Amino acid sequence: MSSPLHHRHAYPPGRAAFPHRHLTGIAGLQPHEILFLLDEAEGWIEANRTRAKGDGRLAGITQINAFFENSTRTLLSFEIAGKRLGADVVNMHAAQSSVKKGETLIDTAVTLNAMRADVIVIRHMSSGAVRLIAEKVDCPVLNAGDGRHEHPTQALLDALTIRRRRGAVEGQRVVICGDVLHSRVARSNILALTALAAEVRVCAPSTLMPPAIEEFGVTAFTDFDAALEGADVVMMLRVQNERMSGGFIPSSREYHLRYGLTAERLARAKADALVMHPGPMNRGVEITSEVADHPTRSAITEQVEMGVAVRMACLDVLTRKSRGVEGWA
Amino acid sequence: MSSPLHHRHAYPPGRAAFPHRHLTGIAGLQPHEILFLLDEAEGWIEANRTRAKGDGRLAGITQINAFFENSTRTLLSFEIAGKRLGADVVNMHAAQSSVKKGETLIDTAVTLNAMRADVIVIRHMSSGAVRLIAEKVDCPVLNAGDGRHEHPTQALLDALTIRRRRGAVEGQRVVICGDVLHSRVARSNILALTALAAEVRVCAPSTLMPPAIEEFGVTAFTDFDAALEGADVVMMLRVQNERMSGGFIPSSREYHLRYGLTAERLARAKADALVMHPGPMNRGVEITSEVADHPTRSAITEQVEMGVAVRMACLDVLTRKSRGVEGWA
Amino acid sequence: MSSPLHHRHAYPPGRAAFPHRHLTGIAGLQPHEILFLLDEAEGWIEANRTRAKGDGRLAGITQINAFFENSTRTLLSFEIAGKRLGADVVNMHAAQSSVKKGETLIDTAVTLNAMRADVIVIRHMSSGAVRLIAEKVDCPVLNAGDGRHEHPTQALLDALTIRRRRGAVEGQRVVICGDVLHSRVARSNILALTALAAEVRVCAPSTLMPPAIEEFGVTAFTDFDAALEGADVVMMLRVQNERMSGGFIPSSREYHLRYGLTAERLARAKADALVMHPGPMNRGVEITSEVADHPTRSAITEQVEMGVAVRMACLDVLTRKSRGVEGWA
Repeated sequence: MSSPLHHRHAYPPGRAAFPHRHLTGIAGLQPHEILFLLDEAEGWIEANRTRAKGDGRLAGITQINAFFENSTRTLLSFEIAGKRLGADVVNMHAAQSSVKKGETLIDTAVTLNAMRADVIVIRHMSSGAVRLIAEKVDCPVLNAGDGRHEHPTQALLDALTIRRRRGAVEGQRVVICGDVLHSRVARSNILALTALAAEVRVCAPSTLMPPAIEEFGVTAFTDFDAALEGADVVMMLRVQNERMSGGFIPSSREYHLRYGLTAERLARAKADALVMHPGPMNRGVEITSEVADHPTRSAITEQVEMGVAVRMACLDVLTRKSRGVEGWA
Repeated sequence: MSSPLHHRHAYPPGRAAFPHRHLTGIAGLQPHEILFLLDEAEGWIEANRTRAKGDGRLAGITQINAFFENSTRTLLSFEIAGKRLGADVVNMHAAQSSVKKGETLIDTAVTLNAMRADVIVIRHMSSGAVRLIAEKVDCPVLNAGDGRHEHPTQALLDALTIRRRRGAVEGQRVVICGDVLHSRVARSNILALTALAAEVRVCAPSTLMPPAIEEFGVTAFTDFDAALEGADVVMMLRVQNERMSGGFIPSSREYHLRYGLTAERLARAKADALVMHPGPMNRGVEITSEVADHPTRSAITEQVEMGVAVRMACLDVLTRKSRGVEGWA
Repeated sequence: MSSPLHHRHAYPPGRAAFPHRHLTGIAGLQPHEILFLLDEAEGWIEANRTRAKGDGRLAGITQINAFFENSTRTLLSFEIAGKRLGADVVNMHAAQSSVKKGETLIDTAVTLNAMRADVIVIRHMSSGAVRLIAEKVDCPVLNAGDGRHEHPTQALLDALTIRRRRGAVEGQRVVICGDVLHSRVARSNILALTALAAEVRVCAPSTLMPPAIEEFGVTAFTDFDAALEGADVVMMLRVQNERMSGGFIPSSREYHLRYGLTAERLARAKADALVMHPGPMNRGVEITSEVADHPTRSAITEQVEMGVAVRMACLDVLTRKSRGVEGWA
């Protein structure tokens, strides 16, 4: 698996570089396909830092962001990404949607398709909802998070952040700590990081650890201190408030004592270990402000920045076929 | 009335083809004016199926979608239509609006006008609200559904769908079945279809049938089986949940037994009869999935597609005067 | 203070005309800086009345409207302003935001900044929230109203309206009547109008009058009839419903009797006195319909129109540095 990683530009030309119609998850992607998306994203980072953001390459493209589950950050990121590329971006909020009138998910998908969407970005509370929609529509579908299943653009932006800050993903010891059981962020990251040959450790209370997680090629820990030994990257997951009352976690204070990332605990990782969090953070629960705001160790705001670049790359790449881009049509 | 229908391009040139400032309803439109809008919509259908959607003809135009009543589908359709034409589209959601602070409808209208909107699309729960606003503003107003009054773009997209699938509207036997009493969709469709010389039958439980409906030039039925005899088109209306608890309908099961469109019942219509529904559907209540998803008989997703084309045509036509289009200014 | 007012174009060239990075309030602005913004806004008024609205000068600019407090009118006004200038406008609604997940305001600000916003427009229920955000981001921040603190674009549009309708702000006797204590509109207007050398009178029930208000250079009245004597402009404030139940006001009827602007009461002002209200109005409470809708005296809809022009000017001016405009970069 590691050989293509040594040759970043070893992916095939044109559509063969990313032959998938949709991006429903990291599962099923080849390492060189993941690297291709990261390389494409690299190209947008500097542009976003100037006023000459994006270009008009998605002019005439209708991008529908169908968010059945609220998510300010991810929606903003996809909306900004599409607009910077010149797409006509339209948001469909579930709270106002026909779904409340009892319409089926498939009817909604068929409706968006009939309006001749060119790309649909979906967030849904049910695992598999995105794949279901992808089967019913004629255009590319981008998963912006579905249930406990996957959140592929989050994993891509995390991999890009690690690669930029640590020089490579390969060989990095990455600790993912938190509610691994319910986390689509953890799942997509495990798939992406292992594909890119990182050494992945997952750490969670036993109530929040998926059974047989080792089959994903990771090492499982319930002791955070042990997991942190020699870590290059510490990736904290958000504690969902609903877990607090669900019997999974005794209390936020108890959770913090055992699984909160403090400066003292971070000292067990490498001296230059990177700290990551997908946001929004529960400061004082899974992470202290001292760590989250650390000027050199924390990559949390850089993750947000990489998110826009990664989404621009995905929107661009997935619509190349329909836009008739040479080598892709 | 039928003579202009035999000459599709018999409408007069320039602004005389559609001399109205607003589109508040189908009432008051001449048959040739309706046909003009359908012909204009035809021009957008193919464009919407390619990536070269629309054009920039509404560049510089401010389109405000003022939705005082939630409607995901209709709002999406108008928003996509405007953006494809290059307009600056702004949505005003009632849930966040000054209306909640007790502002009068007229004050809201005057405010939108003062912001120099070029076209206002309005959906409102009160019949006549759109006309009231139209009287207070300097720009064209498009009715996106007001109370039990009218929903003209729905009737236009339905007529366009029928014309494309059946070759013509004239002479078609169209059965409209459901809550005719409360339905602006039924009302606008009755007006449009009779203007275009279709034979219209309406079918409803007696509690949901408007008094003296025959004065609109339609035949009334309470027996759905009888109404369906020889039908070319069966247009089902959505059962509103609030009717269930209002004494209008005994139960959704009872309603389905008497007025639900099943494959067995559809057999009473012509062998190639078209099935239509404005959506969102209550599957298993007013229509079965077998009928709704029928690959050749159902035109339900085509209706959605026609909706965008019809709205593009209406936005284009209504703004021609202010845009100084030759023959319209 | 009055000398620069006599020379409208006396402000210095380039960035020196408005050397501030943010617009968090009127406080701290020099009279010539306020006049500069008014003059810039003048340039957009006629353009907005034609179809050739705005231009593409903000193309490539990402404008994020972060509204933590609902406000249909102000949000619409900023959104329309940005779109007319060609910006990519993205709205962040608090109701769907991470704020509800317990994220801190600073984390939200840092997130918007990391997405490489070029200008952020903020409305927040807490006084000082806008300044806090301004300190944390790399781009200009525009205050769209924060708590009881300031609402600078409202004061600018009010000053512009007065200048256009009365020829000048200087020397005008302006009466501001209503809940002065809780009103950011009153506060920003007091600062702007006194800076521009108007004679400002504030009038409120004693429970709604800030202590030591005279230190702002205004005269305080509790008797509305006395305050109105010889007034050139009468600016009514909206009565917030929550004040009714808070012990500040006995009842809306009582309030109307003592502080409602009626035609009879308006007769105490100058014969051509202007009537203003920031909207939305409580008709029959702080103002009667007869006065609000007066064809020559009421400037209420003109205020709304000026609002879009003022916001276009502010968005343009604040982004000149980052856009590399000559003399500003």
